[in-house]
Amino acid sequence: MADRRPVLAVDVGGTKLAAAVVARDGWLIASAQMPTPREPDPELLWRALCGLLGRVLASAGVREVDGLSGIGVGCGGPMEWPAGVVSPLNIPAWRSFPLRARLRELFAGSPVRVHNDAICLVAGEHWRGAGQGRDNVLGMVVSTGVGGGLIVDSRLIGGASGNAGHIGHVVVDPAGPECSCGGRGCLEAIARGPALVAWARGQGWRAGQPDATARDLAEDGAGGNPLGVAAMRRAGRALGIAIASATHLCDLEVVSVGGGLSQAGALLFGPLQEALHAHARLDFAQRVQVVPAALGQDACLVGAAALFLAGDRYWAAD
Amino acid sequence: MADRRPVLAVDVGGTKLAAAVVARDGWLIASAQMPTPREPDPELLWRALCGLLGRVLASAGVREVDGLSGIGVGCGGPMEWPAGVVSPLNIPAWRSFPLRARLRELFAGSPVRVHNDAICLVAGEHWRGAGQGRDNVLGMVVSTGVGGGLIVDSRLIGGASGNAGHIGHVVVDPAGPECSCGGRGCLEAIARGPALVAWARGQGWRAGQPDATARDLAEDGAGGNPLGVAAMRRAGRALGIAIASATHLCDLEVVSVGGGLSQAGALLFGPLQEALHAHARLDFAQRVQVVPAALGQDACLVGAAALFLAGDRYWAAD
Repeated sequence: MADRRPVLAVDVGGTKLAAAVVARDGWLIASAQMPTPREPDPELLWRALCGLLGRVLASAGVREVDGLSGIGVGCGGPMEWPAGVVSPLNIPAWRSFPLRARLRELFAGSPVRVHNDAICLVAGEHWRGAGQGRDNVLGMVVSTGVGGGLIVDSRLIGGASGNAGHIGHVVVDPAGPECSCGGRGCLEAIARGPALVAWARGQGWRAGQPDATARDLAEDGAGGNPLGVAAMRRAGRALGIAIASATHLCDLEVVSVGGGLSQAGALLFGPLQEALHAHARLDFAQRVQVVPAALGQDACLVGAAALFLAGDRYWAAD
Repeated sequence: MADRRPVLAVDVGGTKLAAAVVARDGWLIASAQMPTPREPDPELLWRALCGLLGRVLASAGVREVDGLSGIGVGCGGPMEWPAGVVSPLNIPAWRSFPLRARLRELFAGSPVRVHNDAICLVAGEHWRGAGQGRDNVLGMVVSTGVGGGLIVDSRLIGGASGNAGHIGHVVVDPAGPECSCGGRGCLEAIARGPALVAWARGQGWRAGQPDATARDLAEDGAGGNPLGVAAMRRAGRALGIAIASATHLCDLEVVSVGGGLSQAGALLFGPLQEALHAHARLDFAQRVQVVPAALGQDACLVGAAALFLAGDRYWAAD
C-alpha cells in the first residue's frame, strides 16, 4: 500500500532553525522557526531543536512516530555525508555532531536523511519551485554563508566527495577580502550577510549598534540609506559575476536564489542582473534565468522533505 | 563478430590540423599534422584537411573506407551538436560549416561523430590519460583559445545546450581585459596565446616582429627573458584562479591541462599551482591534482577516437 504519511522536514542554519510537517505533494501542513541559539553548548542547541520539532509535530497533529514516513534535514556544511555528522561553519556549537544518529534515536529508529542545506534548496526548487521541468539548475542560499547545490543533465551533482555546488567559494575578485576558508576574494567573503555588515560598518553604518544585522542593512537600503544600497549592490555584483562563471562552466538554465538576503529584492537583484549581463555574454549563457527562490524561505524545508518524497531523484545514498 | 577496425581521429584547431589512425586500445598507428591555413576560403581549408586525412590513412595502410569503424572529430567551438555544423571562434573561414555531413559524404556514408575539441580532450584523458580511474575530471585546452570539458560523477556533463565546460569564460578578474565573447576578465581573455602575445608586445617584447607567437614567448621565457617569464606567470595565475573556482563548484579530482601552451612546463605550472593553492582552501578542494595532459598533444585525437571506441561513455547522441 502506498505510504501516505507526511515527512518531518528540518532546516538547520546559522541564523534560524526551521521545521515543518510536509505532505506528500510538497505542501507544508504546519511549520515553525526560531533563531539559532548562539551558546557554545552542543546539547543546548540540540534541546532547542527537539523543542521546535515537538511543537511543529503537535501543531500538525502528528502524535506517533509511526505517523511520519521519515525525517529529512537540510543543514549548513561541511558534513560527513551520508553519515550526517555535521560541523556547520556558522554554528560553532556543533563540531562533528552526529545529527543523523541523534535524530534516528529520538524518533525510535525512523529513517532520517541529512544533506547540505543548499542541496536541499536546489532539490526543493527543482521539485516544486523555480526549477520545475528544467534539467540544469543551480540553487543558492545567500545568508550567513553562501552555499549552492547543482542539478546538471537532470541529476543532482555530487563530485569527488559530495561537495559539488560550493559556489560560495568561486573567486569573484582575486584581490578581494580574505575569506574564512583561507582563500581570498571568494563570493562568500563579499556577499555573506556578516561580510556586508562589516563592510558597511567600516564605512560608518550604524556606529554604536553592534547588533545590527544584514537584515537591518537591507531594510536601511530599502529606505534609501546610501550605505544599505551600496552594500546590496556590492553583494549583487559579486553574485552576478559568480553566476556568470557557473553558467559558463555548467551551461545552466535557471539559478534560484534563496536564503535570508534574497528577500532584499530589486536592491540585490538589480545589480546582480547587471553584472550577470556584463559577464555572461556567450549565446548559451545569455539564456540563463536568475530568480528568487519560488518557494521563498521554505525552499530548504521542501527540499529536505524531497529527500524522502522524491528520494529517487535527490537521495543517492543507502 | 567484434569490430577490430581502427578509427580515423581528427583534431581541428585554430593553430593546427592533426589526424591519426587510432587502434581499438587507443594507440596511434599513424599520425600527421599541419598548420591551420589562414585563408578565408572555407573550401581551401576543407581541401587541406582532406589532403591531411589522405596522407595519414596512406601511412597507416588503410586503403578502403571499410577499413575504418568510424571517423571521430574534435573541433573548436561553438558548434551545433550533434549535427556537427561548426563555427570555430578561431577559424574564421568556417562559419556554419557542415563538417560532419561533409566527412560522411567524403567517406561514403561511414559513421562520423564531431564534438568540441575540449570535450574530446577530457574524453581522451579520462579514457587513457591522467583521468583514468577518476570520476571527476576537468580537461582543458589552453592554446589559441581556452576550452574545457567536464566529467562529473563519472559522466560527461552536457548542460542545457551541450556547452558545459566553458572554463575559458569563467571570470578571473572582473576588472581585467575585454574578452572576445563581449565580457570582461574571462580566463580566455588573459591566458589564450594571442592575448599573452599582445600583453607582452605592449611591454615591448620583440618589437618589429609581428609574427612572433605564444610559442616564441614561452621559449623566450624558458631562456630567461623576463617578459616571457612574466607572460607565463600571468597565464598560470589566471588558470589557477579559474581552476580553484571550478574545483569548488564541481568537486574535481583531476584537472588535465592540454593544448599548445601546456608545453611551457614549470614556467606555467609553477604560478598555476601557487594561485591554486592560494584560492582552493577548503579541504576537499585542496585535494585536486592539476597535471599536464598525460597524452600530451595527442589527447584530443585519442578522445576523438574514443567517441567511437568508448562511445557508450563519451557519445550521448544518436
